[in-house]
Amino acid sequence: VDDLVRRVLASDTRAAARLCRLVDDRAPGYRSLLRALHGASAPATVLGVTGSPGAGKSTLVDRLVAAFRARGGKVGVVAVDPTSPFTGGAILGDRIRMQRHFDDPDVFIRSVATRGALGGLSRSARDVARVLEAWGARVVVIETVGVGQDELDVTLAADTTIVVVAPGQGDDVQAIKAGILEAADVFAVNKADRPGADAAVRDLENMLALGALTLAALAPAGHGHSAAPARVASGAAGTGWTPPIVRTIATTDHGVAELVLRAEEHRAWLETKAGRSHRAVRARRLVESALRDALSERIVSELGEEMDRAAEQVLAREEDLDAAVERLTQRLRGGGALAP
Amino acid sequence: VDDLVRRVLASDTRAAARLCRLVDDRAPGYRSLLRALHGASAPATVLGVTGSPGAGKSTLVDRLVAAFRARGGKVGVVAVDPTSPFTGGAILGDRIRMQRHFDDPDVFIRSVATRGALGGLSRSARDVARVLEAWGARVVVIETVGVGQDELDVTLAADTTIVVVAPGQGDDVQAIKAGILEAADVFAVNKADRPGADAAVRDLENMLALGALTLAALAPAGHGHSAAPARVASGAAGTGWTPPIVRTIATTDHGVAELVLRAEEHRAWLETKAGRSHRAVRARRLVESALRDALSERIVSELGEEMDRAAEQVLAREEDLDAAVERLTQRLRGGGALAP
Repeated sequence: VDDLVRRVLASDTRAAARLCRLVDDRAPGYRSLLRALHGASAPATVLGVTGSPGAGKSTLVDRLVAAFRARGGKVGVVAVDPTSPFTGGAILGDRIRMQRHFDDPDVFIRSVATRGALGGLSRSARDVARVLEAWGARVVVIETVGVGQDELDVTLAADTTIVVVAPGQGDDVQAIKAGILEAADVFAVNKADRPGADAAVRDLENMLALGALTLAALAPAGHGHSAAPARVASGAAGTGWTPPIVRTIATTDHGVAELVLRAEEHRAWLETKAGRSHRAVRARRLVESALRDALSERIVSELGEEMDRAAEQVLAREEDLDAAVERLTQRLRGGGALAP
Repeated sequence: VDDLVRRVLASDTRAAARLCRLVDDRAPGYRSLLRALHGASAPATVLGVTGSPGAGKSTLVDRLVAAFRARGGKVGVVAVDPTSPFTGGAILGDRIRMQRHFDDPDVFIRSVATRGALGGLSRSARDVARVLEAWGARVVVIETVGVGQDELDVTLAADTTIVVVAPGQGDDVQAIKAGILEAADVFAVNKADRPGADAAVRDLENMLALGALTLAALAPAGHGHSAAPARVASGAAGTGWTPPIVRTIATTDHGVAELVLRAEEHRAWLETKAGRSHRAVRARRLVESALRDALSERIVSELGEEMDRAAEQVLAREEDLDAAVERLTQRLRGGGALAP
């Protein structure tokens, strides 16, 4: 076993930071280092925290870290920052967030930013979470903004996902409602001292009731696409777990203890029969998402020039987009493009 | 040529509606019907309209349709509704939106909803846009909510994309800023009579200035991922077109004529040298996005059981997720899974 891997497994923080950098850079050989970590440490509980920008996720994560630290044991945080190269969020992010944990050697915080490759975000987040688990974290919190499918896919790696909403964001929640309903195991209505908190709780309750009803109505009919049943079935409403709604005020620590309790109840539920089948559905979606991402990276790196030529022909209306896609698919099937 | 195709090309609205239904249902043989349309009609100008929920996109699209209709010629609208099976948005959507155009036989409005398959949204929107073009639309407006990558990918099929923002949505725009900056050819600051409109315009101006600066700073350094340069280069700021910012009040038609003018200026710019290279970059991204979506559908339909088994092993920690993904990738390469 590589010396770096050995040191990470011995909880060497500098070694863990170095391995995270290798993951960031996708340095040659980093994947075999990660694979060497497989099964070599106790599984961490992975907690996803997602929600709209401005809902107060970061402050809440800061409080959750404090709560987990109060029980002892190392804590890891993976902050997923979907900002583009325009803002350089990942570099600045680590410095300004969670300063109170900076001098705690048992808290390891790492940001992961997108670099243009679709789906790369989920993989980087999972990879960093694996490093933190190997380093000895008992709990790894993955914080991600819940605005897009890529970001929601990040939560597939979590055992339990807390969705954070704040009063007055009703309109904007509408569009991401469906995805969030599927991802949520526990809801936190944060900034619960603000006007509109009751309405936000009521909206969530209605949404859950509607979701449960719609799930019941949809279940016998089935769907044309094979992906749909898995997505629907994975909604927590259909599997014996109704996501609890917890009011929090992260800035004063209000409700944080209850939030931890509810997350632990969910973690315990995952060991029940219904919980295990729920986990199986999520694991299936995780595999599908990871496979899709891997193929995306392959086509970019190995079919680049052919896609350029196809684009020219499509633009000149010499070739139908569909026909071009079919041709490129055949190309993948026939030969080198999918070689390892 | 199929009779249905012939009738669509002869502007038969009932035939176009029937072909749209075949597209919706992904009925057997629908793809060959769509391919028969290739090159058989004059190209429509495709206008994308995207933005946050609540920005007033639908009302603005309604006004744009009126403006295009005033010049004569058929107009098509493809409304992309990312709601899940929970709300059934597509069915209700067509009825409540744009009622004023209901009795105009030269306006064809169609909603497209997601059905669980990732990326299916973009393909359905493109397919419906092709039907409307074949039916004789001179302009096809694709309206989509700009909250996720899937939705933004819809705009890759557009010649010109208008991004609609409204005052007071600053916080929520932050997270999708990068994607929106890349997609925007023209900005509409809608509800321009509300407080905060000046601030919204200023924010956009700053964002464009920052984007241009960052693009310049990043350009020489390059990126590890091959997808990144294309995404960065496709930002309008780097290609000789600075997206104009138009103040609109859709409810009173204020600014709509100017918006149409700016969109037409952009359409004309696309024929310049810089514009052509901009189109080439977008076409390349379109091909990549369509290929990725096609592969996603294939893995779901043809590797379903193998992914189930892999998920079980990953969940039981018997196999590393990465190793499972590599194995499934090899499976795709070796055999039947990518067969047509």
